[in-house]
Amino acid sequence: MEPCFDVAHLGHVEVLTDRFEDSLDFFTHVYGLTESGREGDSVYLRAFDDYEFHTLKLTRHQATGVGHVGYRVSSPEALERRVAAIQASGYKTCGWVEGDLGHGPAFRFEDPFGHAFELYWETRKYVAFGDERPALKNLAQRYHGRGCCPRRIDHVNLLATDVSEFRDFMITCFGSRVTEQIRYGDGRLGGCWFTVNNKTYDLACTEDHAGGHGRFHHLTYVVDQREDVLRAADIFLENGVYIETGPHKHAIQGTFFLYVWEPAGNRVELANTGARLILQPDWETVTWSESERKKGQAWGLKTIESFHTYGTPPV
Amino acid sequence: MEPCFDVAHLGHVEVLTDRFEDSLDFFTHVYGLTESGREGDSVYLRAFDDYEFHTLKLTRHQATGVGHVGYRVSSPEALERRVAAIQASGYKTCGWVEGDLGHGPAFRFEDPFGHAFELYWETRKYVAFGDERPALKNLAQRYHGRGCCPRRIDHVNLLATDVSEFRDFMITCFGSRVTEQIRYGDGRLGGCWFTVNNKTYDLACTEDHAGGHGRFHHLTYVVDQREDVLRAADIFLENGVYIETGPHKHAIQGTFFLYVWEPAGNRVELANTGARLILQPDWETVTWSESERKKGQAWGLKTIESFHTYGTPPV
Amino acid sequence: MEPCFDVAHLGHVEVLTDRFEDSLDFFTHVYGLTESGREGDSVYLRAFDDYEFHTLKLTRHQATGVGHVGYRVSSPEALERRVAAIQASGYKTCGWVEGDLGHGPAFRFEDPFGHAFELYWETRKYVAFGDERPALKNLAQRYHGRGCCPRRIDHVNLLATDVSEFRDFMITCFGSRVTEQIRYGDGRLGGCWFTVNNKTYDLACTEDHAGGHGRFHHLTYVVDQREDVLRAADIFLENGVYIETGPHKHAIQGTFFLYVWEPAGNRVELANTGARLILQPDWETVTWSESERKKGQAWGLKTIESFHTYGTPPV
Amino acid sequence: MEPCFDVAHLGHVEVLTDRFEDSLDFFTHVYGLTESGREGDSVYLRAFDDYEFHTLKLTRHQATGVGHVGYRVSSPEALERRVAAIQASGYKTCGWVEGDLGHGPAFRFEDPFGHAFELYWETRKYVAFGDERPALKNLAQRYHGRGCCPRRIDHVNLLATDVSEFRDFMITCFGSRVTEQIRYGDGRLGGCWFTVNNKTYDLACTEDHAGGHGRFHHLTYVVDQREDVLRAADIFLENGVYIETGPHKHAIQGTFFLYVWEPAGNRVELANTGARLILQPDWETVTWSESERKKGQAWGLKTIESFHTYGTPPV
Repeated sequence: MEPCFDVAHLGHVEVLTDRFEDSLDFFTHVYGLTESGREGDSVYLRAFDDYEFHTLKLTRHQATGVGHVGYRVSSPEALERRVAAIQASGYKTCGWVEGDLGHGPAFRFEDPFGHAFELYWETRKYVAFGDERPALKNLAQRYHGRGCCPRRIDHVNLLATDVSEFRDFMITCFGSRVTEQIRYGDGRLGGCWFTVNNKTYDLACTEDHAGGHGRFHHLTYVVDQREDVLRAADIFLENGVYIETGPHKHAIQGTFFLYVWEPAGNRVELANTGARLILQPDWETVTWSESERKKGQAWGLKTIESFHTYGTPPV
Repeated sequence: MEPCFDVAHLGHVEVLTDRFEDSLDFFTHVYGLTESGREGDSVYLRAFDDYEFHTLKLTRHQATGVGHVGYRVSSPEALERRVAAIQASGYKTCGWVEGDLGHGPAFRFEDPFGHAFELYWETRKYVAFGDERPALKNLAQRYHGRGCCPRRIDHVNLLATDVSEFRDFMITCFGSRVTEQIRYGDGRLGGCWFTVNNKTYDLACTEDHAGGHGRFHHLTYVVDQREDVLRAADIFLENGVYIETGPHKHAIQGTFFLYVWEPAGNRVELANTGARLILQPDWETVTWSESERKKGQAWGLKTIESFHTYGTPPV
Repeated sequence: MEPCFDVAHLGHVEVLTDRFEDSLDFFTHVYGLTESGREGDSVYLRAFDDYEFHTLKLTRHQATGVGHVGYRVSSPEALERRVAAIQASGYKTCGWVEGDLGHGPAFRFEDPFGHAFELYWETRKYVAFGDERPALKNLAQRYHGRGCCPRRIDHVNLLATDVSEFRDFMITCFGSRVTEQIRYGDGRLGGCWFTVNNKTYDLACTEDHAGGHGRFHHLTYVVDQREDVLRAADIFLENGVYIETGPHKHAIQGTFFLYVWEPAGNRVELANTGARLILQPDWETVTWSESERKKGQAWGLKTIESFHTYGTPPV
Repeated sequence: MEPCFDVAHLGHVEVLTDRFEDSLDFFTHVYGLTESGREGDSVYLRAFDDYEFHTLKLTRHQATGVGHVGYRVSSPEALERRVAAIQASGYKTCGWVEGDLGHGPAFRFEDPFGHAFELYWETRKYVAFGDERPALKNLAQRYHGRGCCPRRIDHVNLLATDVSEFRDFMITCFGSRVTEQIRYGDGRLGGCWFTVNNKTYDLACTEDHAGGHGRFHHLTYVVDQREDVLRAADIFLENGVYIETGPHKHAIQGTFFLYVWEPAGNRVELANTGARLILQPDWETVTWSESERKKGQAWGLKTIESFHTYGTPPV
């Protein structure tokens, strides 16, 4: 079977916060995103080289966690094919929604664990005005250098009580490939890393050991260099942000990572992936066993306990 | 029209050398590739995380320059579609060739300027043995740290006397997208950067001001970090390699670059592209004018004259 | 003769500007220094880990250039020894001055080319208040991450019409060591790099080919990593700052450099020196010949013409 | 009292190994030092920019640990002053020893915990021959790029059962300054960081909780950039070297660190200190309390238990 190219890339993630002003201050002044608009209870944010109007929709809510995850498709025809496949799949659908400030009509549906997803084609491109215009025309916005100043959105990590079932959902609905996975001794999947393009992953799903529903593990933006991650660690430190773990390198996917909790408690990663891409069209899933996982991260760091237990909203 | 995903990625480049032993020593001990095999007048080389048997075929020849450029397709069906399109196009074809040490049957054809290309599906994956096995199973080979030690092949730059005509060739035969280009005041294209996937480019074509035939400008491998490029500059310096220009940052595509000439005179680049990718399915070509080009590279460095005039074989 | 340790380190440089507001905006928002006080026509500035109240005194003036250069001594007794040596030397002295916002009594004197110097012991240490307090108590101020955010002052480069005569002045008055120098074929010194401590240099003097008087070549602060210099290049680019040359690596001293002109035209460098120090007590001066200089900078970059001709005030 | 400048810098450390061949292979091929000579049971090693013949004397022994620590003085007169001070101090002295392959006559003495020290003036400078000659004449040896390839020796960490007593020894014998220290709630010193020059420290002493005698905690060389430390982590990983902790940043002194155990079990660090120096002549010791220490390293990493308990030889 030929690989599926219907879905182009992760578009945006809606993150919920019960400390809206503090979260917004974190994402703009410390993490270094730019606000491109506001509507209702939401602020629309993006990294300096994200081409779309927004990649993070930060929404005031009574709890923390993820609102929905949006992916952009490759073409209008691809959107039709995906919608047909989803409708045929039996997964719960919410039908077409009007879109919002950042994009046009979107088809909304859910995974079996309560996370909402949207697929859309029509989007609103970010246009830089005034001081935000870049010196080089091939950037979406100038490199403003404020806070950690990541380049673009990278991936989202969700929690599910049955990762195998989640995997089927991603393959069926998005045509995603599984680039790496964790398989326990009893055959259970502990985690899966998915991609729809040449990125090593755009979505990860790990097991929700606490048995929560529709929970969120983290959202990640990338910086150009590992040094930017190290520099960010100092910025987080100086701004009183809780650093959970890192900087260090994941054994899985080789990502150089740094995890913090934004003021409302949602976990946010800043990462660098070096030059690693999945260009191989017949990539075979890399499977990590339980014992391999126990060796810790790439350079031996033991994974911190909260990384396995904490998600938002807390259970 | 939907985007074309038939061609997966740049597979390998055959480089010709009239100082075979010196070139081989450069590519293995200084540039840091690994030899995976030999056959006839050729040695097969690859970077540590290239998944294929080879990405550089270094061939003993009476002159320097490029032998051929190989791309791997996305599936057997995609290969059929591409061959049909090429055959329908009127471009010169050489038909199916048997392949070599590194891959299976390939369809061979030429651009109007005398460069040979191959498309293939069946490939030989590199399998690391003994000391070359990586500590982490998601790498193709261990990070050996020898020489500049790039991660993977990135792109090739060819010269043509008519870049517009070359652009049509790439779009027709590969389904490539033009991500950036230079357009002179008289409407002539001065250079084009092409991609078949999410990389910002896998092939560039710039104008051959000397009017040569089938000439080669450079071949590029990437390293994970800009610091690796800076470190490589010291390695080249200490090994007596001619450094033509860099390290610096291209305005076009934002690539952090370093250009050297291997002992036989072929230009070789070592680069880092940060986290920049072309994920947008409807990316609009960025066009640079002559005056924008005259500003020099990203941070003002004037482009060195030989970069505009020198290619292999020399005219 | 035993080495002299009377002078501890370069303390501060007074830079003159005829575009005061623009220069101040550059030094605070783009270059990333912090204002610690104002008095008369001057603003006192420092890098985040400079322990003194100021390391740059920016003074409104009718022209550009350098006001004076201050060094702190190792002890009150060392100050007495230095003053005695200077008074015995025959160089022009101005006697004791009261000091200013940033330090106590200073002995003021001049080199034969019209540059003013001060030696002082009593200083005012910077005390961080409120938001500027660092998370780690061994830093003078928090890492604020604003602009290029250098760590500390590094060196100053002056111009003189007779570098040999300047060298004698530095040795006599400061007990400086000459770590590297350029000697032309005719025996003339083209440049000298001086240090009073383990830094590779804290002051450089190069020949004023234009025959100016008391002129200034550049002032330099250092960042912790070369990546910080590369990042700064983007910050300068995006803020419309004129980048004269770099980032690249000097052959002399191995400094990784980036030169810009602040709005009034004074040349400012941002540099990284890696782990290189002069720990050897009997270090022998490294002498570069004219032909060695003509090879360009470390990786072959030809030195830009203005670097040899431009200084402030312009002649 | 005026600061003491009699001792110039840490010269070399003798490390003992009961797996001589394995240790030697580690230090040359993986850690990246260069062998400059052999004599008896010892091999003399140095980093590429160490100016002396050796900075590490690796000696075959029936156990692991430290043989002796050598410091070079600032002048012959300074050596006389130091010897007089040591002889007057009542610390155990061994008198003058002949020196060895790497330096001339040395005065040998001991701290109260059984560590041997030497002070010497006459030294043998490393002279690079053949392929080891650097492209730039201000380096001691070419940047060979083999293994981790550190630039120079940085510091040694010893263990003592009474850190206060050790501190008195360092001040009396070396004229060292204490730049940072740990003071427990009961007034006991938990660790002291000493320097004789502008480096932030050249020797650290931490409490030997196991009550050992003359034990060794670690030896450190520095690289120019933090990226070199990250790259080294991959080199250690791929070469099967035990990584104890890091890469991360110490709260104390801000050192970016990576600790491994060489094959015989001696702890070795690779570090980067950025641009941080102690230039201030009246630097006040920074004191860390027990509770401050419990916060972990700079970015929150909890200090691994073995770091507090393991030393060589093991107790």
